[in-house]
Amino acid sequence: MTYTLVLLRHGESEWNALNLFTGWVDVHLTDKGIAEGKRAGELLAEHGVLPDIVYTSLLRRAISTANIALDAADRHWIPVVRDWRLNERHYGALQGKNKAQIRDEYGDEQFMLWRRSYDTPPPPIDAADEYSQTGDPRYAGIEVPKTECLLDVVDRMVPYWESTISAELRAGKTVLVAAHGNSLRALVKHLDGISDADIAGVNIPTGIPLRYELDENLRPVRAAEYLDPAAAAAGAAAVANQGGRS
Amino acid sequence: MTYTLVLLRHGESEWNALNLFTGWVDVHLTDKGIAEGKRAGELLAEHGVLPDIVYTSLLRRAISTANIALDAADRHWIPVVRDWRLNERHYGALQGKNKAQIRDEYGDEQFMLWRRSYDTPPPPIDAADEYSQTGDPRYAGIEVPKTECLLDVVDRMVPYWESTISAELRAGKTVLVAAHGNSLRALVKHLDGISDADIAGVNIPTGIPLRYELDENLRPVRAAEYLDPAAAAAGAAAVANQGGRS
Repeated sequence: MTYTLVLLRHGESEWNALNLFTGWVDVHLTDKGIAEGKRAGELLAEHGVLPDIVYTSLLRRAISTANIALDAADRHWIPVVRDWRLNERHYGALQGKNKAQIRDEYGDEQFMLWRRSYDTPPPPIDAADEYSQTGDPRYAGIEVPKTECLLDVVDRMVPYWESTISAELRAGKTVLVAAHGNSLRALVKHLDGISDADIAGVNIPTGIPLRYELDENLRPVRAAEYLDPAAAAAGAAAVANQGGRS
Repeated sequence: MTYTLVLLRHGESEWNALNLFTGWVDVHLTDKGIAEGKRAGELLAEHGVLPDIVYTSLLRRAISTANIALDAADRHWIPVVRDWRLNERHYGALQGKNKAQIRDEYGDEQFMLWRRSYDTPPPPIDAADEYSQTGDPRYAGIEVPKTECLLDVVDRMVPYWESTISAELRAGKTVLVAAHGNSLRALVKHLDGISDADIAGVNIPTGIPLRYELDENLRPVRAAEYLDPAAAAAGAAAVANQGGRS
């Protein structure tokens, strides 16, 4: 008996296309992102990977990707659970800033530290900043972060995995998690036992389902597989190169 | 203290456009139906009617309408609950049949009996019929109907209202129910205390939110209001005229 978990990073968003730090800012998918969501659903159907329940963040780009993919896979009718713990890493004061400009202004080292350091968050965002989420009704009852490093994301994502998502897997359900580059990296780090240092080199491409087969202890029985490996390799390389000046 | 309930019938589906009996057959929205969903969301936002939770059927046309409307109202992030009890009435052996052809073949009286009789269902569908839902995985664990009259829909919809939806209202949440002509008629019959005879004359237009304000006993404090009354009147007349030979 193994359990099937599928991770899906949202398709291209308007701010991916503009090369802006996004974080918790709630931007739309581009037409390319919509097409990626549809393709993700077709891949699920082609491989017979049919989710019984879907978890999403509270952000439109993940919610829309899940809706589009599940519709394409004829699984639009499954139960849905949304939780802020699946949100992208909060990018602090960098939210809304151009990645190439930040790289030019602060230099390669600082840029990569903010993007890939495990435990150094960007400067906090001001509550009055137009890209702060303070006061957003969807986060009523929680303390909205002002910035996060990947460690902060692990500290909210992994407990949610342990308490909630894993219970559905243990009940025998195929689980789809539709989320973001960093919330999925947090989960991959936990599942694959990746070190704090090595997770910096792990990039998750947009719109390609990543399938895990897990044993009774929810440990992978083999390396996770992208349902379109060639596209995934190209996509991961593109993520790694974000912020380039070209 | 009053409670706000919003009912939304899905936008035009491919089979609405083709004038076919649909029932539990899971057809897509047309472009017009997609536009209706968007307009419904804009109406919610314009009127400040912001759902805290949404209930949908297990059918794509209601699910997509809810997704589109909530995205347009910036409420895409609210909790979602799906249940087969909100499905359209099962139209039995009529599913997939052309309404005008059935009217021509069986005559006006039989046609209107099948469409609007409270307690006379159409002939049952054969389990092997291409438009039967027997064996559909989304209905695992329930006995899929072979046909239903409106009374049958009341008998599944009202208990679900009593046990589940009403609890969210009593907790103070604004509730959106995105469903179908007959599952919503069943609920309207219950809420407004409409007789078995009079419900035949009640038609619900597609894509226009219908707002109820309910008292502590979940009885309407005044007549429910469509958020676009002129469009609703035109839409209800169009529903009443379905099956015409024009």
